[in-house]
Amino acid sequence: MIKGIPVSEGIGLGRAVVIKESEYTIKKTKIEDTDAELRRFLDSIEKAKEQIRKIKAATQESLGKKNAMIFDAHLLILDDPEFVNMVRGKIEEGINAEFAIDESARFFENMLLSLEDEYMRERTNDIKDVALRLIKNLNGEEQIDLKNLPEDSILIAHDLTPSQTAQINKQNVRGFVTEKGGKTSHTAIIARTYEIPAVVGVEGIVNRIKDGDFLIVDGYEGFVYVNPEEDLIKEYEKKLDEENKRKEELKSFLYVESKTQDGKRIKLFANIAHIEEIDAALKNGAEGIGLFRTEFLFMDRSQPPSEDEQFEVYKTVLEKMEGKPVIIRTLDVGGDKNISYLNIDKEENPFLGYRAIRLCLGNKELFKTQLRALLRASIYGKLKIMFPMITCIDEVYQAKWIIQEAKEELKKENILFSQNIEIGIMIETPAAAVISDILDKEVDFFSIGTNDLIQYTLAIDRTNDKVSYLYNPLHPAVLRLIKMTVENAHKRGIEVGVCGEIASNQEFVPVLIGLGVDELSVNPSKILNVKKKILQTRFEEENLRVKEL
Amino acid sequence: MIKGIPVSEGIGLGRAVVIKESEYTIKKTKIEDTDAELRRFLDSIEKAKEQIRKIKAATQESLGKKNAMIFDAHLLILDDPEFVNMVRGKIEEGINAEFAIDESARFFENMLLSLEDEYMRERTNDIKDVALRLIKNLNGEEQIDLKNLPEDSILIAHDLTPSQTAQINKQNVRGFVTEKGGKTSHTAIIARTYEIPAVVGVEGIVNRIKDGDFLIVDGYEGFVYVNPEEDLIKEYEKKLDEENKRKEELKSFLYVESKTQDGKRIKLFANIAHIEEIDAALKNGAEGIGLFRTEFLFMDRSQPPSEDEQFEVYKTVLEKMEGKPVIIRTLDVGGDKNISYLNIDKEENPFLGYRAIRLCLGNKELFKTQLRALLRASIYGKLKIMFPMITCIDEVYQAKWIIQEAKEELKKENILFSQNIEIGIMIETPAAAVISDILDKEVDFFSIGTNDLIQYTLAIDRTNDKVSYLYNPLHPAVLRLIKMTVENAHKRGIEVGVCGEIASNQEFVPVLIGLGVDELSVNPSKILNVKKKILQTRFEEENLRVKEL
Repeated sequence: MIKGIPVSEGIGLGRAVVIKESEYTIKKTKIEDTDAELRRFLDSIEKAKEQIRKIKAATQESLGKKNAMIFDAHLLILDDPEFVNMVRGKIEEGINAEFAIDESARFFENMLLSLEDEYMRERTNDIKDVALRLIKNLNGEEQIDLKNLPEDSILIAHDLTPSQTAQINKQNVRGFVTEKGGKTSHTAIIARTYEIPAVVGVEGIVNRIKDGDFLIVDGYEGFVYVNPEEDLIKEYEKKLDEENKRKEELKSFLYVESKTQDGKRIKLFANIAHIEEIDAALKNGAEGIGLFRTEFLFMDRSQPPSEDEQFEVYKTVLEKMEGKPVIIRTLDVGGDKNISYLNIDKEENPFLGYRAIRLCLGNKELFKTQLRALLRASIYGKLKIMFPMITCIDEVYQAKWIIQEAKEELKKENILFSQNIEIGIMIETPAAAVISDILDKEVDFFSIGTNDLIQYTLAIDRTNDKVSYLYNPLHPAVLRLIKMTVENAHKRGIEVGVCGEIASNQEFVPVLIGLGVDELSVNPSKILNVKKKILQTRFEEENLRVKEL
Repeated sequence: MIKGIPVSEGIGLGRAVVIKESEYTIKKTKIEDTDAELRRFLDSIEKAKEQIRKIKAATQESLGKKNAMIFDAHLLILDDPEFVNMVRGKIEEGINAEFAIDESARFFENMLLSLEDEYMRERTNDIKDVALRLIKNLNGEEQIDLKNLPEDSILIAHDLTPSQTAQINKQNVRGFVTEKGGKTSHTAIIARTYEIPAVVGVEGIVNRIKDGDFLIVDGYEGFVYVNPEEDLIKEYEKKLDEENKRKEELKSFLYVESKTQDGKRIKLFANIAHIEEIDAALKNGAEGIGLFRTEFLFMDRSQPPSEDEQFEVYKTVLEKMEGKPVIIRTLDVGGDKNISYLNIDKEENPFLGYRAIRLCLGNKELFKTQLRALLRASIYGKLKIMFPMITCIDEVYQAKWIIQEAKEELKKENILFSQNIEIGIMIETPAAAVISDILDKEVDFFSIGTNDLIQYTLAIDRTNDKVSYLYNPLHPAVLRLIKMTVENAHKRGIEVGVCGEIASNQEFVPVLIGLGVDELSVNPSKILNVKKKILQTRFEEENLRVKEL
């Protein structure tokens, strides 16, 4: 048994398909017919371009434009005269194409690595990929074919790239196990989107498992069993069977209205971070998007996304949700996330630092660009804009003021936007909860970010192992602050959602319902689970229980 | 005009006395009469010992045992056979004593610098000091005489060491200006204790100012004027005059009871961190110690202070305060303070990390040693024990449980302790304020730590320049949490103090009084200022103003 990080729930049984990146020892040889060698090289480039274009098209179709963009970078390298000419020069000196490619690629990799910009440094992977592809083409080696996987495959890889997951025939895949990655890695997101059990962060797995090994992947616990005994297989087959039954049962709730036993409606929304997750949200019956995290649009690049690029994404979300409410949160990043072009200083306490709305109000152009993109997209659906990390009324005034400016600009440019965009805020600082009766005068809705609210109220960083024992969503101070927020909002006649992790926790859902929360927003795969819990809950009973908090 | 960090308020006019550490270029010369050279060396050691013993005695008298301990380290070096024999060996090889000392000192410095332990690495300064002293003695150079400073001296130094400040005739000193140091450096503490204006952190000042330069030191703003024009001198003389009048006026409040115009008693206590500050507290009429910070006892050393060592300190504070209440806060340190022997990991967000009561409950022996020392000292005065950074009732139970254990141990050992020690907690997390009605069942008093309460409530690190603009003590959420805490405490019949910085701020004192706070605890030098403000305030008026918060 091997242990890794579980990132997509579920149980998978099947046979290993190991994606091994061949390691080449590239030898330098003396070439006599340099013209022929040059033709070999140029052929390998043409072949690579064709391969990449195909993968790009497949990726774009299944994962959207943004994920396909990486292949443009690959194509650019193949067209880069500096790279091509360097290889050509070496070949003309009588060096074999493989060695010439390898040496030239290393030269450009080192050049990139010497740059300050982290984004540019990460581009060395693209060069490595392209060089490997060229060398494989030269060797006549087949690129791994993921389109025709055998049934009941469990993919084992160092990491799955977008180009790989784009090709995979998901019907035949029962699990992913990778060496790299974490909860938000590409593999993890794709696995959750397609509900494929996945375990990541398993070091050395590629060399420990052979093609055809029988595997059990436990995406709940992060276990991977290699050629297990019959008893264990039976046990897991039973679990899988139960899981399937549970899934079937949950599917039966798909068209049932989300309300408590005693008839209180609880809206059930989805938290998503990528366009690709919309399908999963809809498939599981999300009544709307309770939190669209826009930060991933801004990450892993050398400059912020343009207004048009953002517009396309927001428009897609709104269109796909067909008029259902979509709460899009404005940029929520800070010193603990690496966004090189924002030049955020390293901070002593990034969780108490320059982040989220603070950073946006301090980078007005960046913020206004996002707001303009949101406003332009607003005509394609029911957009709600939400500001993160509010602590005082001034921040709300300022943010609304910049929206107003953006609206006036668009008006002058004759660009349409919706007249009914609701503006809301996250309640995730103790200050915001305590003055929610002041803040609610200026906004149309609240969404309680319980993760942060708990952290700040209890003054703990829950990612810090030494204090995470204090992280307690049922701490009376936390419950009182939620209660206070809900009561104030309802007095003012506005709705309160909860989009933190506890909204999908079976233990806490009844408490949140008792506290009067109107809407729960959870990961797409959790929606039906939560709905089941809602259907079992009696509001009056839970409400009585929290009355005397 | 030169700008530095103001660390002790007041205005000083006078002439510069520059303490320049001579820089030696020590030459290696060939010695013929090695016996004579050896005698020179041994004489310099005897002379150094005598000098150090004198300074130690003077330091102990004026600054207490702890500060005098550093000289024991110096004496130990002079008695260290490894050091002495290394020098002796070199002299016997025909090397001059100065060079032999310098080379041997460097050897030991490098050895210490190669160690992991930060405390040991810092001991290189002691070796440097001792070596310099020996070399000066060899050269027949006078050590700087600080006992006979001319009148109206302003001391300019790289930094002032305890051995220097111990010797200084404070009557003749009008100001300190140093290159090194911050708000809590030795120079700063001594300056505040003796109410000498001080500006620290002025780089290059030692070389920019000459002996006899006329200087103005503005300890309010951190300005130092060198040979200023007549107009500016007049202006500052006027300010100094006003300051002196203000001080005279403040002195007139010394024996006036601290209460508002309409007769509400407000207790006025002192915050201190070192025994040396008690005199200043008493001189300014402190009715008690509202916060004795014990962390300085634990800092800058290689292992925690023993129970006996702590006992001596706590006993001294209690005795000196002669039955007035003394609130001693248990160890309040964490990942942002360097206490090598606690092996605290570097944390991503130390303000939200393993600190204060969390660290104490996790290091039970360390904690119990402090509690035993406190209990033993309790019979010498009116001790109150206070726990920092409480977030939940469990922490109070646990801390009280360990006190109980310590008491039982002492009982078994037939060691006396007071039966009436009050136990209190800091209210400095939003959680503690929000559940103050639960916490007050278990404790005898609250002290609101406004600095941290503001930081956590508003989710900002106020030492972070990018967000310090959000630090607002009058934020309604902060005021409401204070109000809530006071109301809950008074319902239960326990008292509430405030020991954060805002307690000494003229703007906030009336607000705190209006909120019903019973006691304000401030730096000794601020006591009479605050008393004046209290005497001018009408409780009923301020209370009405905050009623509708």
